Amino acid sequence: MPTLTSPRAGRAAAVAAAALVAASAVLVPQTAFASVDEPGGAQRHPGDATDDLRASIVDGPARNVILLIGDGMGDSEITVARNYAYGAAGQLPGIDALPLTGQYTTYSLFKDGANAGKPDYVPDSAATGTAWSTGVKTYDNAVGVDIHGTPHDTLIELAKANGLRTGNVTTSEIQDATPAVQVAHVAARSCYGPDSASCGTDALEQGGLGSISEQLLDTRPDVTLGGGSASFTQTAKAGQWQGETLFDQAVDRGYQVVGDADGLDAVTAADQNAPLLGLFTPGNFPTRYAETVATAGGADGEAVTCEPNADRLDTRLSLASLTEKAIGLLDDPSSDRGFFLQVEGASIDKRDHSADACGQIGETVDLDEAVQVALEFARTDGETLVIVTADHAHTSQIVDSTPPGLSIRLRTVDGTDMLVSYGTSPAGGSQQHTGAQLRVAGYGPGAANLVGLTDQTDTHYTIAEALGLSRDRAALSAGATVTLPKSSFEPGEEFEVTLGGFAGDRQVGAVLASDPVDLGRTDVLSGTATITATAPTEEGAHTLTVTGAQSGVEVVVPFDVAAGGEPGGPVTGGPGAGAGAGGGPGGGSSAAGWVDGLASTGAAVAPWLAAALLLAGAGTVLVLRRRRRAASARIPAGMVSGH
Amino acid sequence: MPTLTSPRAGRAAAVAAAALVAASAVLVPQTAFASVDEPGGAQRHPGDATDDLRASIVDGPARNVILLIGDGMGDSEITVARNYAYGAAGQLPGIDALPLTGQYTTYSLFKDGANAGKPDYVPDSAATGTAWSTGVKTYDNAVGVDIHGTPHDTLIELAKANGLRTGNVTTSEIQDATPAVQVAHVAARSCYGPDSASCGTDALEQGGLGSISEQLLDTRPDVTLGGGSASFTQTAKAGQWQGETLFDQAVDRGYQVVGDADGLDAVTAADQNAPLLGLFTPGNFPTRYAETVATAGGADGEAVTCEPNADRLDTRLSLASLTEKAIGLLDDPSSDRGFFLQVEGASIDKRDHSADACGQIGETVDLDEAVQVALEFARTDGETLVIVTADHAHTSQIVDSTPPGLSIRLRTVDGTDMLVSYGTSPAGGSQQHTGAQLRVAGYGPGAANLVGLTDQTDTHYTIAEALGLSRDRAALSAGATVTLPKSSFEPGEEFEVTLGGFAGDRQVGAVLASDPVDLGRTDVLSGTATITATAPTEEGAHTLTVTGAQSGVEVVVPFDVAAGGEPGGPVTGGPGAGAGAGGGPGGGSSAAGWVDGLASTGAAVAPWLAAALLLAGAGTVLVLRRRRRAASARIPAGMVSGH
Repeated sequence: MPTLTSPRAGRAAAVAAAALVAASAVLVPQTAFASVDEPGGAQRHPGDATDDLRASIVDGPARNVILLIGDGMGDSEITVARNYAYGAAGQLPGIDALPLTGQYTTYSLFKDGANAGKPDYVPDSAATGTAWSTGVKTYDNAVGVDIHGTPHDTLIELAKANGLRTGNVTTSEIQDATPAVQVAHVAARSCYGPDSASCGTDALEQGGLGSISEQLLDTRPDVTLGGGSASFTQTAKAGQWQGETLFDQAVDRGYQVVGDADGLDAVTAADQNAPLLGLFTPGNFPTRYAETVATAGGADGEAVTCEPNADRLDTRLSLASLTEKAIGLLDDPSSDRGFFLQVEGASIDKRDHSADACGQIGETVDLDEAVQVALEFARTDGETLVIVTADHAHTSQIVDSTPPGLSIRLRTVDGTDMLVSYGTSPAGGSQQHTGAQLRVAGYGPGAANLVGLTDQTDTHYTIAEALGLSRDRAALSAGATVTLPKSSFEPGEEFEVTLGGFAGDRQVGAVLASDPVDLGRTDVLSGTATITATAPTEEGAHTLTVTGAQSGVEVVVPFDVAAGGEPGGPVTGGPGAGAGAGGGPGGGSSAAGWVDGLASTGAAVAPWLAAALLLAGAGTVLVLRRRRRAASARIPAGMVSGH
Repeated sequence: MPTLTSPRAGRAAAVAAAALVAASAVLVPQTAFASVDEPGGAQRHPGDATDDLRASIVDGPARNVILLIGDGMGDSEITVARNYAYGAAGQLPGIDALPLTGQYTTYSLFKDGANAGKPDYVPDSAATGTAWSTGVKTYDNAVGVDIHGTPHDTLIELAKANGLRTGNVTTSEIQDATPAVQVAHVAARSCYGPDSASCGTDALEQGGLGSISEQLLDTRPDVTLGGGSASFTQTAKAGQWQGETLFDQAVDRGYQVVGDADGLDAVTAADQNAPLLGLFTPGNFPTRYAETVATAGGADGEAVTCEPNADRLDTRLSLASLTEKAIGLLDDPSSDRGFFLQVEGASIDKRDHSADACGQIGETVDLDEAVQVALEFARTDGETLVIVTADHAHTSQIVDSTPPGLSIRLRTVDGTDMLVSYGTSPAGGSQQHTGAQLRVAGYGPGAANLVGLTDQTDTHYTIAEALGLSRDRAALSAGATVTLPKSSFEPGEEFEVTLGGFAGDRQVGAVLASDPVDLGRTDVLSGTATITATAPTEEGAHTLTVTGAQSGVEVVVPFDVAAGGEPGGPVTGGPGAGAGAGGGPGGGSSAAGWVDGLASTGAAVAPWLAAALLLAGAGTVLVLRRRRRAASARIPAGMVSGH
């Protein structure tokens, strides 16, 4: 009977303590079950729970937030998994343990036509993920943009801008909608990589922000773990890394790239200087249990039990293990800032689409184990908000007799049979998402906001407010500084420019003038960056203009070029008066302009426009010296082969 | 467009204030909808709600509890109704307003065979209702009994025994499972009346407690409102009312019987002396909207809007109106005790079974209006716990494209189309219940117990504990007294026996001895009753034994029969030492025995056995004078015709 003993079997020794908790929790329903036919025997919470509820309500702020998503995990999918693996009277040790519970609505909006802006009652994962990642309702297919095509800051982007560490973990391709909504802004969710035909104007070569994979590298979470390595073998078609594969680009930009469990084990730290990109499969992860698909009249057949999936990854790569690894890398008690981590159990949805009951159940159990890991951390930490929910409801229903469509008969841990129906698509078709409101549940500071009826977009604000995230990128980069080693250079002299305080930005662009020379874009690491520039050959007064790609904050530093270039101390500039006053997200406030005693004349900049311009122009004049790192030293043994 | 304007239209003027609240609530989503495509525009709860949640947590006890059940109202059914009537961004003004929310499990148990006692993952309304009414898991079909056939006290029975007023309101036949579980104990839910073949050993003539309708009259809630008059035209086959219709029996036993809105309007008070029995249809109530059934490929067809049902009852008989009437009759500020009221919107389930989307939606909207009435009362009252939940999930699903089974395309208040699928049964069949966990939500003292994951049986204890209900019937009847007008009677002399303090009982039996003469059973009204007895003709020492049918408390009063029977004062007896010490529900404690200075020799009695014996013997020797009341004076104008 694998279902009760196997859920946590084989986990790394490092999670032994958590496993012990889970194992004891598994036993509870069995004890309770003995008297389930007696009055009160089926109760889950004997006694008055009022004070327990009071005690579970903790005011924000939260230092950390862990958001765990069961893709397609409606209440029906939760019940299917509980019944199968822990029994009807049992408890999913993670999911069911959350003390604060509510429901939320998940509808999306129509983008075009007569119904533009009106509700679309059955959403997809792109629209729903965008709802919580950005707080805006959008159309199915949209990743991080609204129905007008406007991008909005995601929780990972905002958390980064506010100095938090960030992580993104999934069992799907990392480009799949749910992880993508935290790191990218594209009109079509299938814009995975440079080769994706669906990218349209989002493609770099079209002047867009790039494919999801390329934007992921720009967004630069500290920790990214999942599947989807295939897209990273594609080659950039434009921009600073044109002609390089995305894996090479990642290494160039400082990422630690790993592709297997040993590689992951070797990673002991991850931060903005060396973020972790772990992609363990070309596509989605194999599920815990072997595929077991419902058939026409299947519930009339023999009862089946779920079999282990021979293709399942090393348990060090289970969702619980990856969650634990991510938490371990992101949690830094020595820092005054915490982290935001999103974790997705992706294939509840995917297997439900395929009417694969065992696939769906195993993925739910896997997610539940990740929830246990998150809760275990949060209980110890005391400052972590854990939220568990789903993006949309799905097809599977527990029924009493064989339905006309697809069905399956499962023998559960109770020893009785559960009949599951998949009735929204014919055999071979994709079972549909459904439009029911969903459970949302939480633990920790701010979780009280989840109780009652909310909308999926409320969750964005619940998290952002729990973490105290500022959305004002201009203010976040108001302390930006650009420092030149001196104020006068010889014609053609190479020099290093030091940037600081660009906290609201992930990249900056830089332009030398008078004759404009685009220095391309540079990743901002925790507000800092270094740009290598070459002084113009024309003698006279020049400027270096550095613009935050997300904040629009602009710093203009004047310098001279003269034969015999003067020595002397460094010159530092700050934001101009108009910097950041543009109309982009987070814009609005501006910082006082100062350039080492000289007035700066910054122009109003729309940050998103600025970012697009920077990207479009990035390939034209490249004087940026690539910070190509010693790849061999930074790539652990388990790096994905082939790149 | 009837859906937005009609929900409360036509309601009696008495609910105008509540209607105003609802009408303004209806407008809220429209306002919000204007900006639903903007960041935060779809939020339901802007700002931090932590203190709001804290404020919503109120310790018990509660003076009153109103439990509202949407039969078959899973999260999908809630969302279908919200989308249709108030829009995806809208709010069901009642159901969505409850501040404390959770989920509960609903599984039932198998009664027989190899799986006896194991979970049955898809329950029926009988098992689920019994779960919250009695706190015990049972088998599908069981009303108020467990899988071993043992009856358990219901919330209405317990509330009555604790001196609370009680009510039972539904839009179905009052004998239908959900209302029945509060007033009856039968092995088969279809045991509606004396003519029901399914009653088996529950039938009076088989020595059982009688059909659901007959047990309803025994249980004697203060207020009973619904459909199902047909069963009351049947004639009792055994017992004290053998040969009479149940309607005549009801009148005999003091009920106010009404059958239409005028009749109901004329009722201004209802209590144990004159309980209200309002049955307004022979079967179930017609629904708000005309039947609109999903068809094969229906979602490919024209979008439909729901039409008013021409057969709908007078709006004075809407579920909201009946709820308001019941509350008005049950709420007695001058009393130190409150009330327990169950309200059911029954046809969400019934119409879902029939794939009738509009029927289902209208019934959900009707229930929501009843919830508004309950909340309005509770907000003003401040001591009322309101709980809104369902008994089991059901078939209907909101889908994105036309499914292979039955479906329908509905044009909602949003102006867009919602596709609803019914896929668990072929056309013409009954769509199935489903096994998903359900939303449970509440407001008021004790509602904190609903948050998180509970089981349906927990709700029984949440309510019983909020109301501080004692289950110890022997203790509740420990103050029982039986008073004879004197201690010696002439042979054959008629005399009145006065009972008091039988709070734990709904009936008592009485036996004269030495030659046993069964005096039949007598309804206990708020612990009191009067029995008319005739002294034996044989001179010498005799006893009158009075036994509480539910408590088992026994009082034995000795008296003499002698020619010229002595005058002298009354003689009063109390419970015997062994009274109530039996094994029935609530048994266990016993009261000290006293009989006006003489020791009593009460025997241990199993209450449920005693009740059965009393009923079985009730027809044999009847010297009880029926308290037949002046029916014409007590039956308002609207009494059901035909009986």
